[in-house]
Amino acid sequence: MRKAILVDMDGVLVDIYPRFFELYKKETGINLPEEKVTGLLEAEAFPNQRKWVSAPGFFRDLPVMAGSREVLKRLSGSYDIIIVSLATEFPYSLTDKQLWLHEHFPFISWRQIVFCGNKTIINADIMIDDHPKNLDFFKGETIMFTQPNNIHLTCSAHRRVDSWYQIEKLLLQ
Amino acid sequence: MRKAILVDMDGVLVDIYPRFFELYKKETGINLPEEKVTGLLEAEAFPNQRKWVSAPGFFRDLPVMAGSREVLKRLSGSYDIIIVSLATEFPYSLTDKQLWLHEHFPFISWRQIVFCGNKTIINADIMIDDHPKNLDFFKGETIMFTQPNNIHLTCSAHRRVDSWYQIEKLLLQ
Repeated sequence: MRKAILVDMDGVLVDIYPRFFELYKKETGINLPEEKVTGLLEAEAFPNQRKWVSAPGFFRDLPVMAGSREVLKRLSGSYDIIIVSLATEFPYSLTDKQLWLHEHFPFISWRQIVFCGNKTIINADIMIDDHPKNLDFFKGETIMFTQPNNIHLTCSAHRRVDSWYQIEKLLLQ
Repeated sequence: MRKAILVDMDGVLVDIYPRFFELYKKETGINLPEEKVTGLLEAEAFPNQRKWVSAPGFFRDLPVMAGSREVLKRLSGSYDIIIVSLATEFPYSLTDKQLWLHEHFPFISWRQIVFCGNKTIINADIMIDDHPKNLDFFKGETIMFTQPNNIHLTCSAHRRVDSWYQIEKLLLQ
């Protein structure tokens, strides 16, 4: 039987930090150095982050994470892929996120997408996520995708990967 | 431990048929009698249904099912409530559905909401739904909410209820 993988969006399929730095620069005129945000949650690192992500349109044109499209397509040959995003906190993000997925990941059907407020109720075998708040409560195999928010964590419970090519190596070879 | 209930939106929390009849009348001038649509799926009963539900705004101002608000609020005292809607087929429905829930069910938090393309991956103890396509694959207790689409079905696997007051009787007394 094929294993099912839950794949997170922000910080895993969506390269979201560059947009945060860009908006911070736009609002303050300051180029925030990456080391200033490492180890902090996004809302701690960027004081206006909740305002930004609440606005209609924010999630519609974010950059795609390097390698995610090709590797996810290859993984689709051997695994059931389910995209799962904690998105219901921000009602206007929902339609934007879905249209973004249709544009950049046309091989992912609407049947494979979940927007929710709690990932613990979703069944699957493997979870790829950048947030320990999601990974810690998952019963299957966990893969932590390196992002500034988790870079200092040394958590032996989750396997760390720094790129989609590492995910491919781990799951397809 | 509290049991978790998955509660469907359209045809369970949302009284969606009156709007379908209204739009049919508007487009054709004909008052479609209810017996013409019983036993048919919504898309079979109303040829333009997919066009209607794809349009931005459709799900934003639909009527609330009689009794659903009061009974769901009372159920919240004894059960974990999760609202789950097969909504990712229609990207513009997502934001509308979430804003509708916030307006009419303010006691339901964003953490209790799931929009997805497949309900079989969601864990819970009880499912309330009007569609056998969802109920048939659920592992827990199933409650079929009577709607024109399911009215002819005699399916002993699912307990049928005709109103939210019957749900209250079943689950709280």
